[in-house]
Amino acid sequence: MRELTLDDLDDMVLGATLLGTGGGGDPYIARLMVRQAMEDFGSVQIIEPRELDPEGLVLTTAVIGAPTVIVEKVPAGTEFTTGVRAMASYLGKDPVALMPIEVGGMNTLIPLATAAELGLPVIDADSMRRAFPQIEMTVFTLAGIPASPMSVADEKGNLVVFETISNPVAETLARTAVMQLGMANAISAYPMTAGQIAEHGIQGSMSFCVDLGKRLAAVQRGEEGAFEEFLGFAEAEVFFTGKIIDIDRRTTEGFARGTVVIEHLDDPSRTMRIEIQNELLIAFEDGKPVVTTPDLICLLDLETAAPITTETLAYGQRVNVIGMPCAPEWHQPGMIELVGPQAFGYDVEYVPMKTKGSKK
Amino acid sequence: MRELTLDDLDDMVLGATLLGTGGGGDPYIARLMVRQAMEDFGSVQIIEPRELDPEGLVLTTAVIGAPTVIVEKVPAGTEFTTGVRAMASYLGKDPVALMPIEVGGMNTLIPLATAAELGLPVIDADSMRRAFPQIEMTVFTLAGIPASPMSVADEKGNLVVFETISNPVAETLARTAVMQLGMANAISAYPMTAGQIAEHGIQGSMSFCVDLGKRLAAVQRGEEGAFEEFLGFAEAEVFFTGKIIDIDRRTTEGFARGTVVIEHLDDPSRTMRIEIQNELLIAFEDGKPVVTTPDLICLLDLETAAPITTETLAYGQRVNVIGMPCAPEWHQPGMIELVGPQAFGYDVEYVPMKTKGSKK
Repeated sequence: MRELTLDDLDDMVLGATLLGTGGGGDPYIARLMVRQAMEDFGSVQIIEPRELDPEGLVLTTAVIGAPTVIVEKVPAGTEFTTGVRAMASYLGKDPVALMPIEVGGMNTLIPLATAAELGLPVIDADSMRRAFPQIEMTVFTLAGIPASPMSVADEKGNLVVFETISNPVAETLARTAVMQLGMANAISAYPMTAGQIAEHGIQGSMSFCVDLGKRLAAVQRGEEGAFEEFLGFAEAEVFFTGKIIDIDRRTTEGFARGTVVIEHLDDPSRTMRIEIQNELLIAFEDGKPVVTTPDLICLLDLETAAPITTETLAYGQRVNVIGMPCAPEWHQPGMIELVGPQAFGYDVEYVPMKTKGSKK
Repeated sequence: MRELTLDDLDDMVLGATLLGTGGGGDPYIARLMVRQAMEDFGSVQIIEPRELDPEGLVLTTAVIGAPTVIVEKVPAGTEFTTGVRAMASYLGKDPVALMPIEVGGMNTLIPLATAAELGLPVIDADSMRRAFPQIEMTVFTLAGIPASPMSVADEKGNLVVFETISNPVAETLARTAVMQLGMANAISAYPMTAGQIAEHGIQGSMSFCVDLGKRLAAVQRGEEGAFEEFLGFAEAEVFFTGKIIDIDRRTTEGFARGTVVIEHLDDPSRTMRIEIQNELLIAFEDGKPVVTTPDLICLLDLETAAPITTETLAYGQRVNVIGMPCAPEWHQPGMIELVGPQAFGYDVEYVPMKTKGSKK
């Protein structure tokens, strides 16, 4: 157990933006909420699942909605505590800790604000270690753990509790409720024991996010060797360096979809095309997939090393395209069907990235 | 307290079809469920709310969905007990009785089947004493009683519990969930105490429905004076006698909408037009409204005295158009805004029917 400091918080915001892989909502809004909550209610403890009673109940809290709406409709905060309390009441048991469901984007930080208010620690684990657009896209789904019972709450006091027979049905029902409740709500899903998280969760996600942000901050300060250190820590690789020559974005079926085309800085005959569905999902060089979901694609501004989200993409931006392997916990049966390119409707095979653990 | 007999059940089906005012789903399907439940679990007791502990919890159960879908997708039955049990668990209290929310159409009978299975009595009261298409269209809404907490369950095991800040939000959220869950589900709304029902419910609805059906059955058997007796009991009036010369039906926005035009048998220069939204809502003679919601409009086959539902309307049918005053409990502040013609989007004033109690 360790206390989260304000320095940690800044690094976490940077790491979370990177792990948002172009989407995941704006962590800066969530940062304001966390700072306010820490001022009002005190600091937050980060804890390992194994430090808790294995039978203890852990609840999650997150924003569900369209990132574009979340930017305009800043969360009130009350909906997160309402949603968590509703789950506790529905399950007839109080939680011993909260957990982020998604370490990537703003949902990395939301549980910290709620935990400060409820006086609970936050578990150093999650179910994605990146952003994904749908509720069922978690390592818990691979482990057969249901997303339900699940609650969706709005800031006005409306609350819905779902008990569903499958995680895709949970996604459909929650998404429809959210469309009726203003497109930016609090969700609490995957109630679990600390023991289940220790066994099936992605371990150390919060620490990883802070450490990643810390290293990226060093790059941004221009420290010598910092970029290599950052790439090494993340096991990441620069796949392309170029300028954005085409952006096509549209919002359809509740998703921000689009395509961005980048021309190589040194060789204009080389182009990279990246497909977007809220997050950056697949990078093609000259028509051939080179980085594919669930591995992460991140755009870094070439001058400032600032991560670029899909909302801030602009013509002429000079960027490094970074590929980063997904958390090792993802590599288990069912991963490709759940979060591979075909799960998003692309007729593309998964191209695994090399990692320290892999033999390639 | 009295036992519901099989004879009562047949009369109730006939009365419920009439009170369905052209909609409300087919009570014959529900009748099969009730017979089966009575064979499996024993008979059902009908009880006055004042016979119960005023603090006792009463739950409701009903079908929610599109009547056209319900005909094709016969309810499995398990969804109703699931929905009621979920409410009891959410509220942390067991019910002492069930109540029909809608005495009119198939929802008159559904609670009887569930009550037989759960070994509970059914209260002789409801919130409409006719069919209405939306959850908030109840005398309980007029009394300020919330529809939520509320559950929606399907036959596969999916379950949603709602806690909403207003009854129209409850309607919107439930309707959206139902659209995702196959368009014919079990809803349990308006959890209340027996004392609240005694104070705010429409009293004696189930008995009224049976008595109405009994009198209509006598008409159908051709007994002398039966039609006058039926009209007198219902305080009903024949507004028009003619043949159907035009029917326009369409299903839009989750409603069966339409118009039926009837030409007078004795004077072809007279026509009546009836507007439909699931139920028959407004009858115009030569452009002038003569019967308007919440008063009831019922079409009776001229030869057989069978009530005609909007699904069975046919060109050339000869019909009596019966107007019947709504339950007196409806006449209170807010009625016209909630269930008058303008609540359904018609720019028409409510034209109250004469009743024994009225001064007109």
